[in-house]
Amino acid sequence: MDLDLVFLGTSGSMPTPQRAPAATLLRRGGERLLFDCAEGTQRQLLRSEIGLVELREIFLTHYHADHYLGLPGMLKTFSLRGRELPLTVYGPPGLRELFGALRRIFGRLTYEVELVELRAGDVLERPEYDLVVFPVQHGVVAVGYALVELPRPGRFDVEAADRLGVGPGPERGALQRGEAVTLGDGTTVTPDAVLGPPRPGRKVVLSGDTAPAQSVRDAARGADLLVHEATFCEDERARARETDHSTAAEAAGVARAAEVALLALTHLSNRYIARDVPRPARAIFSDTVVPKDFDLIEVPFAERGPPRLVKGGAAHERRPEHVSAEVP
Amino acid sequence: MDLDLVFLGTSGSMPTPQRAPAATLLRRGGERLLFDCAEGTQRQLLRSEIGLVELREIFLTHYHADHYLGLPGMLKTFSLRGRELPLTVYGPPGLRELFGALRRIFGRLTYEVELVELRAGDVLERPEYDLVVFPVQHGVVAVGYALVELPRPGRFDVEAADRLGVGPGPERGALQRGEAVTLGDGTTVTPDAVLGPPRPGRKVVLSGDTAPAQSVRDAARGADLLVHEATFCEDERARARETDHSTAAEAAGVARAAEVALLALTHLSNRYIARDVPRPARAIFSDTVVPKDFDLIEVPFAERGPPRLVKGGAAHERRPEHVSAEVP
Repeated sequence: MDLDLVFLGTSGSMPTPQRAPAATLLRRGGERLLFDCAEGTQRQLLRSEIGLVELREIFLTHYHADHYLGLPGMLKTFSLRGRELPLTVYGPPGLRELFGALRRIFGRLTYEVELVELRAGDVLERPEYDLVVFPVQHGVVAVGYALVELPRPGRFDVEAADRLGVGPGPERGALQRGEAVTLGDGTTVTPDAVLGPPRPGRKVVLSGDTAPAQSVRDAARGADLLVHEATFCEDERARARETDHSTAAEAAGVARAAEVALLALTHLSNRYIARDVPRPARAIFSDTVVPKDFDLIEVPFAERGPPRLVKGGAAHERRPEHVSAEVP
Repeated sequence: MDLDLVFLGTSGSMPTPQRAPAATLLRRGGERLLFDCAEGTQRQLLRSEIGLVELREIFLTHYHADHYLGLPGMLKTFSLRGRELPLTVYGPPGLRELFGALRRIFGRLTYEVELVELRAGDVLERPEYDLVVFPVQHGVVAVGYALVELPRPGRFDVEAADRLGVGPGPERGALQRGEAVTLGDGTTVTPDAVLGPPRPGRKVVLSGDTAPAQSVRDAARGADLLVHEATFCEDERARARETDHSTAAEAAGVARAAEVALLALTHLSNRYIARDVPRPARAIFSDTVVPKDFDLIEVPFAERGPPRLVKGGAAHERRPEHVSAEVP
């Protein structure tokens, strides 16, 4: 099952010509989970190869304007297109109050919006993964999110199955699903006899805005990918403390302590040149990347290789205007 | 004195990959007047050759979200940059109430924002031009704006001055400023003896969102440039009526009746290909253009030629990231 993250907005609180403010799309199989939705996110989607798809779930990390200002326009656009599919917006406590204020802007919609307030420690349990809500340290009510896949069944040992007399057919399928089977000769074969040890699922962690925090380290332990904010560089470490943000080096420290496979830095202040950011981080944690808008990171199962950054992987060639219509 | 309009957002209520929603910058000499401020306008400015300059005046035509949703983010960004210069926002009645709701988003600012509610018929008198607020027809409280330059003094007739004995020097300057002068021999020369008839100033008219309206025709009479919305084409004329918008052909009818020099169509619905729009309009009014984002229209004094569209005139070449920092 494919899993990747598309970086739709990688700037800090202010946009730059090249970078929109915070928005990250997680794609897993057919699912599309949007994390944060800064001003301009609907157009970033339109400008990407993804298009402005009918998102079903949006997760907010906190309620600073640069993380939610794209919501009212996007909700309104969905409505203008006649959307009927319900949308669920998740976020820490304060979500209902925020929507009380935003409703004045987007008005009546053609579809239902369900608001779900989540607390740090909550876990959304889904068939194939848990979505873990963890605390961060940003001076306001704020959380991060970890998508933690459940372990997959172990590898099926064809030779062992042959040896035990389980030929190709429905019995192998049952064993793969974890069910014991009884053969024609009356012997029973249990799954552990033909399956290797369960294989770990993947883990992708998004810090949102935060100072370097033990809670993020804990949530990110052993992650395949940690997306961590890096608003500042070391010259502004004092300012990072004042504003409850992280420096690139501090984010790298979290990644190293958590022993993640790959660190992606985002939420860059426009005072830095993007090329200033990787060096101090890589000095501490070498597997660090600094995605640009429309870059994506593929997260394959561990046995298929490490996560990798694909430059411009979600950009499409500039389309001529006549193929851009997005109206249903 | 240079006068031009920069099209920062030319889509209707929904953005497209190529077009941002409504925002138009009028530049006159050193002045920068922004008309409407849809979601993403701050970034459109950053992406243009103009940059996110410290605007002093923003004019809103009405309070549909696709005309003001860029304000809270832009105001916030100015504040994050430590702006001290006051900003004035103008709009029809309802502006204070809107800001009551938006303040929840942008919070405390480092500078003052003055809100000025304008009614149709109001005129802001300035040294060199009037800014005329005129009524439009959009089903909600909504206005258009006309910038009407005061007449300039007539052309100075050097031969007449020589004949009357007014040589080069300060006396010519006084006559050009409209003052009578007394020569050494006691004769008095009045300005009308050496100045041609006053020359008309320029007139630029922005309709905002509106159905085709007599009030817009009146306001646009003889304009150098009419920027008129054209949300629909003729196949959606009924829908244009329902929603108090105009078709491209209807906008052209207004331009023809008002005898403007150039019509620029904007606020295009994403259901149309931009190339569908000019033909029906030009069948009615040939001097019609359909600007794209970052196009500009130069409006020279009449004696220097007609207004002209400059394709991509406000686009800058894609700058490498290290020269993009906009922090003071």
